Amino acid sequence: MANRVTLKEIAERMGTSTSTVSKALNNASDISTDLKNSIIETAVKMGYKNRNAFKEDKRKLILFIENMEYKKPSDFGYDIILGFKTQAAKENYTVDILPITPDFQKENHYDSYMMQNGYNASFGVGFSLEDPWMEEFKTSTFPTALLDNIIQGTPNVCNISTDSDEGIELAIEHLIKLGHEKIGFLNGSTNSYISNRRMSAFLKSMSKNHLPIDPALAIYGYFIAEAAPYHVPNLISAGATAIVCGNDLIAKGVIDCLKDMNLKVPEDVSVIGFDDLPMASTLNPPLTTIKQDRVALGVNGYFVLYAMLNNVSQSKSLLRPSLIVRESTAVCKMRIVTEKIVDKDSVMYQNPELFNQRF
Amino acid sequence: MANRVTLKEIAERMGTSTSTVSKALNNASDISTDLKNSIIETAVKMGYKNRNAFKEDKRKLILFIENMEYKKPSDFGYDIILGFKTQAAKENYTVDILPITPDFQKENHYDSYMMQNGYNASFGVGFSLEDPWMEEFKTSTFPTALLDNIIQGTPNVCNISTDSDEGIELAIEHLIKLGHEKIGFLNGSTNSYISNRRMSAFLKSMSKNHLPIDPALAIYGYFIAEAAPYHVPNLISAGATAIVCGNDLIAKGVIDCLKDMNLKVPEDVSVIGFDDLPMASTLNPPLTTIKQDRVALGVNGYFVLYAMLNNVSQSKSLLRPSLIVRESTAVCKMRIVTEKIVDKDSVMYQNPELFNQRF
Repeated sequence: MANRVTLKEIAERMGTSTSTVSKALNNASDISTDLKNSIIETAVKMGYKNRNAFKEDKRKLILFIENMEYKKPSDFGYDIILGFKTQAAKENYTVDILPITPDFQKENHYDSYMMQNGYNASFGVGFSLEDPWMEEFKTSTFPTALLDNIIQGTPNVCNISTDSDEGIELAIEHLIKLGHEKIGFLNGSTNSYISNRRMSAFLKSMSKNHLPIDPALAIYGYFIAEAAPYHVPNLISAGATAIVCGNDLIAKGVIDCLKDMNLKVPEDVSVIGFDDLPMASTLNPPLTTIKQDRVALGVNGYFVLYAMLNNVSQSKSLLRPSLIVRESTAVCKMRIVTEKIVDKDSVMYQNPELFNQRF
Repeated sequence: MANRVTLKEIAERMGTSTSTVSKALNNASDISTDLKNSIIETAVKMGYKNRNAFKEDKRKLILFIENMEYKKPSDFGYDIILGFKTQAAKENYTVDILPITPDFQKENHYDSYMMQNGYNASFGVGFSLEDPWMEEFKTSTFPTALLDNIIQGTPNVCNISTDSDEGIELAIEHLIKLGHEKIGFLNGSTNSYISNRRMSAFLKSMSKNHLPIDPALAIYGYFIAEAAPYHVPNLISAGATAIVCGNDLIAKGVIDCLKDMNLKVPEDVSVIGFDDLPMASTLNPPLTTIKQDRVALGVNGYFVLYAMLNNVSQSKSLLRPSLIVRESTAVCKMRIVTEKIVDKDSVMYQNPELFNQRF
């Protein structure tokens, strides 16, 4: 991370003077905004790094947050920010937290923003696949950790997630032990990397456990409780005796919806969430859910950036999930005692990934 | 990582005195080996940690190495150990390097060995799926990083690898740009986690790039040059114009074997390795290969253990590979100019994972 590009080199490239470059990089007022911006763009493209960012007393990280509540302890983002800030502070980094929008991303180029503000690295939380910076990350020169997003092929961006395959597998194994075979999955939206990972994990786990995959039982919705009523009746009529949900909010909606249908949880239908938000234990019945350790996700955000600042180019850093068993899951009353018949020739059974692509 | 279990609790569990427990844990001579061992086993099962392991001046890590050369700079393990020791030293951990065997693992229980010798955490390099400790890792209470091995479901063991999917994808994309479609893969042995990951990556990448998968072109062998002669003739008669190899040693064997068959590399057949060992650039022709940054793998061994010692339960930590293009790859002279015919209904095309299970 040493600063190799000099002001002189930038000046030569731009055909201007070193002092003009210096003014631009120090955000001086007596230089036109256009010239300043084009100098900054060039400096960044040449790999120039803000010297201040490497002074011991000025090591700065930034956490960009979007599409996520984080102000209250009950919010998903709260513990993530807590973990990130706490660990970074221990290691003498100051951390800024900046809620952003797609418009902010259009107005500010990522690398320029990082360089101008003297940040060493950033942790991006809650980005959607459509966000303008998702494209800029592909060529970024700054160590960047993204929660639940992945950028293929760039050495400077690392994906941080809770291991979806292992989390969904814990849920499916728990339901199988309880005798469930007709297991439904009500997922979040399709425009999310992690939601696609969880669908893929569900299909893999069903296939691995020799359970048939019914397209009517593997559904994309939205990461909100309000999505449930549109899908739960179909899942039930397709024979689901258990419903795994893409997050706890969906699970809350599913439980409410089942009650409206006069179905008891867990006696008639078992429900499993994902995340273990504080509210999960307060639902009626208390929710069995796949826990993400959100403090650890935040702490790991720091550890990944620390590794990348030490020239270790991580691509994926996954954390262990755990299954928190509460009262929303029970033995399947329609337990099939006869031997399972699985159509091992069906495309769905043979090829979960292909099936996944249908969405 | 605080030490919660007391000698008194262990003594009560064992129905013996605190001083006897103290003698056992401090490896005193005036106590029978059998009693000493059973006390240590009990202490470890109860989660007892050696207090010395948590004194600032006694923080100790150990790297266990097996099935891998590491003494010479040209050996695969050399840079891994260098990176691990260097980073750990920077952060005031002392590191011991211990070459081990399956017999050593049978004679020493993993957790007992760690506790008795006051180690905080370990980095395991070169373990095979049959190693006795692979079973013990499943219930270990010590933070453990394993290079190219994975233990499902335990919170204390993390897999460290170079991203196989991304590495193989770089190689396949490079060959496709050169007009190759009949691409063979000569892999390492089946009793290796990473070799299975690379086969899976090859099948996924071929499928993703809409190239047909021919079982005769996706072969398991051994991670040695000597394996090549048994497979290369078959790959060539199956029509391979390019051969991707599970590591650089296999690639060396493939190049020699092709020469014996009077085939020119790269004019007749392109060859790609995996690892970028120092010898790769000295081959004739110099080898195009998927580079693993071995120093970074070692440094990351420390970073993963550091995260786990800070209660961040990582399951997978993958590093970015890069493709080093040298002279062993060239444009396919049999480039097919007519449109590709891909049998999208074939099971092989639809279902690489299933195909993979055939081995």
